[in-house]
Amino acid sequence: MKTNTILLASRPQGAPTEAQFRFETRELPALQSGEVLLKTRYVSVDPYMRGRMSSAKSYVEPFKVGEPIAGGVVAEVVESQAENLPVGRLVVGNLPWQEFSVAQAKMLQPLPAEGKAPASYYLGLLGMTGLTAYFGLLDICEPQEGETVVVSGAAGAVGMVVGQLAKIKGARVIGTAGTDEKVAYLKELGFDEAINYKTADVPKALAAAAPNGVDCYFDNVGGPITDAVYDLLNKHARIAVCGQISTYNATEVPTGPRPEGKLLKTSSKLQGFIVSDYHSRWPEGSRQLAEWYEQGKLQFEETVTEGFDQIPAAFLGLFEGDNTGKAVVKVA
Amino acid sequence: MKTNTILLASRPQGAPTEAQFRFETRELPALQSGEVLLKTRYVSVDPYMRGRMSSAKSYVEPFKVGEPIAGGVVAEVVESQAENLPVGRLVVGNLPWQEFSVAQAKMLQPLPAEGKAPASYYLGLLGMTGLTAYFGLLDICEPQEGETVVVSGAAGAVGMVVGQLAKIKGARVIGTAGTDEKVAYLKELGFDEAINYKTADVPKALAAAAPNGVDCYFDNVGGPITDAVYDLLNKHARIAVCGQISTYNATEVPTGPRPEGKLLKTSSKLQGFIVSDYHSRWPEGSRQLAEWYEQGKLQFEETVTEGFDQIPAAFLGLFEGDNTGKAVVKVA
Repeated sequence: MKTNTILLASRPQGAPTEAQFRFETRELPALQSGEVLLKTRYVSVDPYMRGRMSSAKSYVEPFKVGEPIAGGVVAEVVESQAENLPVGRLVVGNLPWQEFSVAQAKMLQPLPAEGKAPASYYLGLLGMTGLTAYFGLLDICEPQEGETVVVSGAAGAVGMVVGQLAKIKGARVIGTAGTDEKVAYLKELGFDEAINYKTADVPKALAAAAPNGVDCYFDNVGGPITDAVYDLLNKHARIAVCGQISTYNATEVPTGPRPEGKLLKTSSKLQGFIVSDYHSRWPEGSRQLAEWYEQGKLQFEETVTEGFDQIPAAFLGLFEGDNTGKAVVKVA
Repeated sequence: MKTNTILLASRPQGAPTEAQFRFETRELPALQSGEVLLKTRYVSVDPYMRGRMSSAKSYVEPFKVGEPIAGGVVAEVVESQAENLPVGRLVVGNLPWQEFSVAQAKMLQPLPAEGKAPASYYLGLLGMTGLTAYFGLLDICEPQEGETVVVSGAAGAVGMVVGQLAKIKGARVIGTAGTDEKVAYLKELGFDEAINYKTADVPKALAAAAPNGVDCYFDNVGGPITDAVYDLLNKHARIAVCGQISTYNATEVPTGPRPEGKLLKTSSKLQGFIVSDYHSRWPEGSRQLAEWYEQGKLQFEETVTEGFDQIPAAFLGLFEGDNTGKAVVKVA
């Protein structure tokens, strides 16, 4: 049995390009007891994967050059040597970018047989994306009714969930995004204010949108937007640092105004995190997100690209702001 | 009744100089019921006062130009219209830089009649200084046995207490200071490692002193020392931002490498604070500090300048690194 696979061809210097990826056909091993053969249905492409392409130590191990790239995948069991995973069952797991793969059943999470959500949502709203928003906002920022919450990268998969969760908690929510279409979409989602950071004077627009200052900041992007938010912090503000996409492709150490003085003057907290920090509480988060989704309190948006060969392009598009919401690739 | 007083003559641009201060003789008001006449014994000079000399909004109100500068003072009651504060009693309070002053008794804290510590320690180890170290280290950094703690400005009044508290908690403690004499003093206090940041290659020296990385960082200074510490953070590190003395006299916004990416990769927390954030817990902190002091577990050091007219010079010396430990001025 052979499969198409996408390898890391070389490590990027600065912005990644198609040159980082190589398609190859590889032989799959024979199924062992406890294993299943999977056919890939949806592949998740996420900004954090840029970090794994570098050799630098980070919160997850770097990808190896010459080996398949791996990430969140929804797949269907097409052959099974595992009792609890019959043929036809959909699962989600950390799997290679391949059309087929072999995995141990115990490393996979079966999708609910009668879930109301589309299967791909288990890579997004009901998966790592939603859990990232859930714990970063509710555990670190702890927005209170009437407080002001700013979300950068708000039209991204995590950001749009953050904003809606903050509205559920009764906060005033301001989002930043990079196109007028995204800004309009954020308004539809219930954001109180949305700012196109590419066309607005960001410090002025933020100050106008947050006349009572900023109590919580959920940061996906870093850089100048973040600098502007820091100038508006209220006493005892809480900042969750989830991503820094504006700096991921930098080839030199990114510099900017030092934030410590601003955090000192306001007794503010800044907390970096990754969703795996909350591993023991994932079931709580998943349950709550699914409940709010089924009650119609959470909307979700995907940018779906079709075709296994389009995975690299979908990934590269993340850094161009091509996607609204979760970027996934539908395979087969 | 007249008194000498020191007014803020003008706001500093960059480093403050003698020109910011003006000596004047002022008339004191007659004592009202509930008030006491105080003779100043010790005046505290502290880096945070630089912030109050600027007009910018900060965590405490700016001093007014043409009005007396005020801060921590130990004084003796020389006339009393307050039952609970007899003549002769020593008190500590927030009082103007004057030889004599009139204050409401309820705004003052009487010193214990039979405390073992020198009166000036109530401006330092057993006052705001010690409490700043106590809450910043124990509440924000929460050092665990065997962890590595870095303290910048370690030979300053707050820093030397932080290091000793970290040793009490069983941590490995590294301090930075600006002279070889201070480095030697930190070793005497029980610091495991001390680095002269003016002569050492700080990133190399820190890396050598912290072979297991840094779990806690108590930051008094900011700037390049802080940048170097960030590169050594372990997963889930905790940073208490207490001061940024390296930047207080900057006339432009200080810039440097952006820290957010490093805090993100390590899921680290950075918390700005001021001792008043912990106001409700001061009695707990004071009790514990006094207990450790009386058990001989905490040493303290003062740089005592003599003479009311030397207060400005003692304050300015803080920015030259003139003091080891708490800088106080003995008056009369």
